[in-house]
Amino acid sequence: IFIVELLFFLLYFLSVDHFGFDENLTFQQRYLIADQHWKGDNGPILFYTGNEGDITWFCNNTGFMWDVAEELNAMLVFAEHRYYGESLPFGNESFSDSKHLNYLTSEQALADFAVLIEYLKTNIAGARYSPVIAIGGSYGGMLAAWFRMKYPHVVVGALAASAPIWQFGDLVPCGTYFSIVTNDFRKSGTGCADSIRNSWNAIDNLSLTDAGLQWLSNTFLLCSPLKSPQDAVLLKNWLSETWVNLAMVNYPYKADFLQPLPAWPIQEVCKFLKDPSLPDKLLLQNVFQAVNLYYNYSGVVSCLDMSETATKNLGQLGWYYQACTEMVMPMCTDGVNDMFEPQKWDFDALSEECYRLWGVRPRPSWILSMYGGKNISSHSNIIFSNGGLDPWSAGGVTQNISDSLVAIVIPDGAHHLDLRSRNPLDPKSVQQARATEICYMKQWIKEARHSH
Amino acid sequence: IFIVELLFFLLYFLSVDHFGFDENLTFQQRYLIADQHWKGDNGPILFYTGNEGDITWFCNNTGFMWDVAEELNAMLVFAEHRYYGESLPFGNESFSDSKHLNYLTSEQALADFAVLIEYLKTNIAGARYSPVIAIGGSYGGMLAAWFRMKYPHVVVGALAASAPIWQFGDLVPCGTYFSIVTNDFRKSGTGCADSIRNSWNAIDNLSLTDAGLQWLSNTFLLCSPLKSPQDAVLLKNWLSETWVNLAMVNYPYKADFLQPLPAWPIQEVCKFLKDPSLPDKLLLQNVFQAVNLYYNYSGVVSCLDMSETATKNLGQLGWYYQACTEMVMPMCTDGVNDMFEPQKWDFDALSEECYRLWGVRPRPSWILSMYGGKNISSHSNIIFSNGGLDPWSAGGVTQNISDSLVAIVIPDGAHHLDLRSRNPLDPKSVQQARATEICYMKQWIKEARHSH
Repeated sequence: IFIVELLFFLLYFLSVDHFGFDENLTFQQRYLIADQHWKGDNGPILFYTGNEGDITWFCNNTGFMWDVAEELNAMLVFAEHRYYGESLPFGNESFSDSKHLNYLTSEQALADFAVLIEYLKTNIAGARYSPVIAIGGSYGGMLAAWFRMKYPHVVVGALAASAPIWQFGDLVPCGTYFSIVTNDFRKSGTGCADSIRNSWNAIDNLSLTDAGLQWLSNTFLLCSPLKSPQDAVLLKNWLSETWVNLAMVNYPYKADFLQPLPAWPIQEVCKFLKDPSLPDKLLLQNVFQAVNLYYNYSGVVSCLDMSETATKNLGQLGWYYQACTEMVMPMCTDGVNDMFEPQKWDFDALSEECYRLWGVRPRPSWILSMYGGKNISSHSNIIFSNGGLDPWSAGGVTQNISDSLVAIVIPDGAHHLDLRSRNPLDPKSVQQARATEICYMKQWIKEARHSH
Repeated sequence: IFIVELLFFLLYFLSVDHFGFDENLTFQQRYLIADQHWKGDNGPILFYTGNEGDITWFCNNTGFMWDVAEELNAMLVFAEHRYYGESLPFGNESFSDSKHLNYLTSEQALADFAVLIEYLKTNIAGARYSPVIAIGGSYGGMLAAWFRMKYPHVVVGALAASAPIWQFGDLVPCGTYFSIVTNDFRKSGTGCADSIRNSWNAIDNLSLTDAGLQWLSNTFLLCSPLKSPQDAVLLKNWLSETWVNLAMVNYPYKADFLQPLPAWPIQEVCKFLKDPSLPDKLLLQNVFQAVNLYYNYSGVVSCLDMSETATKNLGQLGWYYQACTEMVMPMCTDGVNDMFEPQKWDFDALSEECYRLWGVRPRPSWILSMYGGKNISSHSNIIFSNGGLDPWSAGGVTQNISDSLVAIVIPDGAHHLDLRSRNPLDPKSVQQARATEICYMKQWIKEARHSH
């Protein structure tokens, strides 16, 4: 059953440019409301700060909010991020050039949320003084945290789940992210991480000949065959992304977030990757079994498409633009602390690529100037939850900053596991995390009532 | 002696658009630094958040900062607001149309300040961990308060002097501003406010005939004679603005902020306005004596120019644009609680005028969404100082909001009197206000040292 059936789909006109007055254009932002548990009378509102994808998909993968709505008699609002899903400021033209993309920033998105909430509180009977709590995961978690920081008059608190707000500048080492991915594979089966580490060389060896390239194409069931050693780079990138995605969705039960997968999918994958010392072809046949589990768990896929790694529900085009402007997250690998090919962080290369693609240059220090980097202690009422298995915890806040800027670590959790619906197979750690989160929310609501 | 002689004049390249990446243009922001009292070693920095005018002029009229620099061994930085003074993003083209004006907003100005401070702390030896305090008056006071609210990681606290952050939306009654002006005149001499109230009708009567218009032009020494009854409206507006400006600069000693003036200038002006029951011409001859004191205290002016009310140091063009976009401050008069002709607040008329002038429409609720209106209690370390004689105190924060959001009222103070240099004629109330302000600053600096 899709939760969406219980929702109202709504649209609200917002300024395309909150920070300038030259073009007085508006666009329709889509948002979803579920109020079956809400009792009016200024009861609480849980507000999902939509991130880089279709809001209905996030709505369906954020079951925790539905569970909390019941417990707190809260209204749920899911707001779609501009330039994603159906909230396109210029329709089909939205991604046509840097002029049309110019309003795709986190600051504009936060302003959208602020204006939308004011509108809702003014226009929904009984919501005028409702305390609003921001909730989001991943980039949406960053938005939730930043929303509370920048608009504390709009939201009384924020749950920022798996939000890597410190994956910027030199706040954290660039290699931690991939070393967490590697640890997930290392812990999930003997020889697993080493098999992957050895696979890069095996691919290189085979990609030297046309026969080898064809063998790779056939073995990996590729929809578009490899034609040159350069294509082997694409294959390696695609595999790397697959391992990273597996680390993100390494959930303790059967799930379908990015792809349909079994419980603890890395353990399943690692069953194929026990022997890192196999000859190249045998090793890569095993690697294929592993990735095939990720892309073809349903068994109905006839070939694997290297251009697809995550899910069609994510707006990749928009996110690439954001990564080329504000969201510059340094990443690197060394092949020693991680199982990937060594690659230094190369800002100049990124900048050139961004200029080539969009005609824009990234500003790597802007997010730090805007949102404070590690100097955020004067803010309040933000929960930063992190999964110990989640590579994004590398850039997350994993230690308490103050009494009301608290960190929760879920050792057995992958990417924002806490935001998912309750499940009988949930580890104790995520159950406790959710209980703590609800406890803080109740406290924020209570404080808001007192101060009002 | 102009304080400016002790300063370094400097320029720094900043993004024209912090919130968009389409145009990667930069401009040179001017700022002034005075470090003769600073001892390095992460000593404090007092940062003037420049407002709508030439920064050297504000620098010369903010003597308080120089006095505090000595006491706290602080470095002074005065940052010019974009689109004012010499900090013009597009040079002579900056005001040419709404496209070039598009980056004139408070948000862009605050981002300028944040980026500039990061640059200074990185590049001045011994300033890396210097606590920075924002100080500003009037619109600059709003900027100081908003700067602390939005960038608490950049400034440890803010002194917002005579900052009408609540003169927006329906946060305060629109008529209080002019009733404070009226009270200043009422208290400064018997018959004074009533004389002004009666003057409007007298002008109307005389403007009915050509002879009357000529008499008015001659009597008021106007550079451009009045030619029609419509021109009489200009005369009345010009007089109104003059009374308002007098209320703002009603300082207890001879000063030269907007114009060179004697001590307590309203008392001087009111010496001419004792008898409100005089016939029209005699009444208006007295009104002329009064305004002539404002515009011609030096005695060298040969005619009075109705197009000039305040000072050439203020960037009127830029401020009109800001008032037509973000800075929509409702004002009204009723002729009963004030001495002015009744005029309702007419947003639609403003909007039409703005569209005619600049092709833009004001967004009256945006400032409330952005900066929180009256819901600012979650912020910290802001002093709101207000002069009891200052009409802008109508929109100011005049009562404590919390332990660290404090209001100071200076009953005998006009517009940001506390920011001016110490003076032997200072009333006790402003001396106490300054002492309190310095006390809070010391506390913020101490806290910052502890937390670092």
